Amino acid sequence: MTNDQSEETSFHVRFAETDLMGIVHHSAYLVWFEEARSAFMRAKGTSYTAFEAEGVSLAVSEAEVRYIAPAKYDRLITAQCQVDEVKSRKITFSYTVFDAETGQKLATGVTRHICITRDGRMTRVPDEWRKMFISFQGTS
Amino acid sequence: MTNDQSEETSFHVRFAETDLMGIVHHSAYLVWFEEARSAFMRAKGTSYTAFEAEGVSLAVSEAEVRYIAPAKYDRLITAQCQVDEVKSRKITFSYTVFDAETGQKLATGVTRHICITRDGRMTRVPDEWRKMFISFQGTS
Amino acid sequence: MTNDQSEETSFHVRFAETDLMGIVHHSAYLVWFEEARSAFMRAKGTSYTAFEAEGVSLAVSEAEVRYIAPAKYDRLITAQCQVDEVKSRKITFSYTVFDAETGQKLATGVTRHICITRDGRMTRVPDEWRKMFISFQGTS
Amino acid sequence: MTNDQSEETSFHVRFAETDLMGIVHHSAYLVWFEEARSAFMRAKGTSYTAFEAEGVSLAVSEAEVRYIAPAKYDRLITAQCQVDEVKSRKITFSYTVFDAETGQKLATGVTRHICITRDGRMTRVPDEWRKMFISFQGTS
Repeated sequence: MTNDQSEETSFHVRFAETDLMGIVHHSAYLVWFEEARSAFMRAKGTSYTAFEAEGVSLAVSEAEVRYIAPAKYDRLITAQCQVDEVKSRKITFSYTVFDAETGQKLATGVTRHICITRDGRMTRVPDEWRKMFISFQGTS
Repeated sequence: MTNDQSEETSFHVRFAETDLMGIVHHSAYLVWFEEARSAFMRAKGTSYTAFEAEGVSLAVSEAEVRYIAPAKYDRLITAQCQVDEVKSRKITFSYTVFDAETGQKLATGVTRHICITRDGRMTRVPDEWRKMFISFQGTS
Repeated sequence: MTNDQSEETSFHVRFAETDLMGIVHHSAYLVWFEEARSAFMRAKGTSYTAFEAEGVSLAVSEAEVRYIAPAKYDRLITAQCQVDEVKSRKITFSYTVFDAETGQKLATGVTRHICITRDGRMTRVPDEWRKMFISFQGTS
Repeated sequence: MTNDQSEETSFHVRFAETDLMGIVHHSAYLVWFEEARSAFMRAKGTSYTAFEAEGVSLAVSEAEVRYIAPAKYDRLITAQCQVDEVKSRKITFSYTVFDAETGQKLATGVTRHICITRDGRMTRVPDEWRKMFISFQGTS
């Protein structure tokens, strides 16, 4: 399911991620999205650490999750990430979370990010980052 | 800021909720929203536990968060919850998170919920729940 | 239960802290211990933030938890913290977690801390901190 | 590093697992220990889910962690689990957490578990479980 424009990572559902309803707590999906985003960056030969070294960081400005089916303890999960939109001041990633064995779609979502400097001010996405993210952008 | 239609709860930011950017991780806001929702239910004289005893539970079907300003370790936070919309098959709550001392708005969001039975099937919101949630509904 | 040598904080169990066994996940107690430690520092008129401003921080070197009875969703919990031992290179805190309504003891534990500089090297506990922590020390 | 008596699992440090000190929060290690324990069970051809189906579950009665070196965001981590001791009423697992690339030991720990029935009473470890855990037991 991975292509040049997307990247995915797989992991088992952790016991600590479940709640008393017997399923994965809904906040865990934001952590999985982020791990898919980290995997995306690693696969592109860079890492968020490298970004931050430049004194600019990507802060989450909006997040949306649509929950389709519950994830259960010990299941193998695949979380997929792609770049959706690149603007001068905003980058949008989108995500799909699957049960890796059955292929069932469990959740989808997006996160929108702005660039901030070390003292917390909003800034433009650096040109080289924009070019890079545009080159990663999906065509869907 | 609390009235008949909304309820709020206050707590200090926990060290474990921060991340290496020095601010609260964006997934923590869903946990805070949920705690505000729990406080809302407690204030209305019921609790989610009472609901679940009837064999029907509210599952999160969608969540949205808009991050406005970062929350920092040890700050006193207020999270506010109100019922936004009650339909035969869906209940929507909305949330505002403030810095309790400065009054600064830190985040807003909504969660949408469906009713599911113990075996995981979607069902209508029970009539008495609907009436109750409608009576709690904000007019904003 | 608070005296000059100890401090406590109370909060409701969060839904997200439960796991599929229907009780609070065992890792949450370390977060509660830490929140009790933060409350202890706030009550003493200082905060961990103030410490860190001096360029030295307390890192956890050991943690132990003894689980006595399970905590359940929505229960009001009290977490108590006191200074147990102050050495030139190590500070030990101890904790008790109660059900705030029944008084039942749910867990006890200790955390041991060392001082580290910003570049991660171990250092002696600064003299003024040592004096301060000794003055807070319980006699039990 | 895996043999018949131990099992390990590897994963990248998640951004959400870091705290404002720039390192992994100390509570995350209990989650990693548990994930190593899950991997251990999966590797032995069973899973905790299978256990629970019998109406008996393993509850954590004690946990200890010794933190040796900090784990950083995005590093590849290996968490290793083995059975340490099997008694009629208690099973002890021990853990080691490494940086998977440098081999540096980051933390060690143990968790002790008791058997409880669905209504929360303590019970003996079922004979077949005891035999199974003894057969997994390390000789170190």
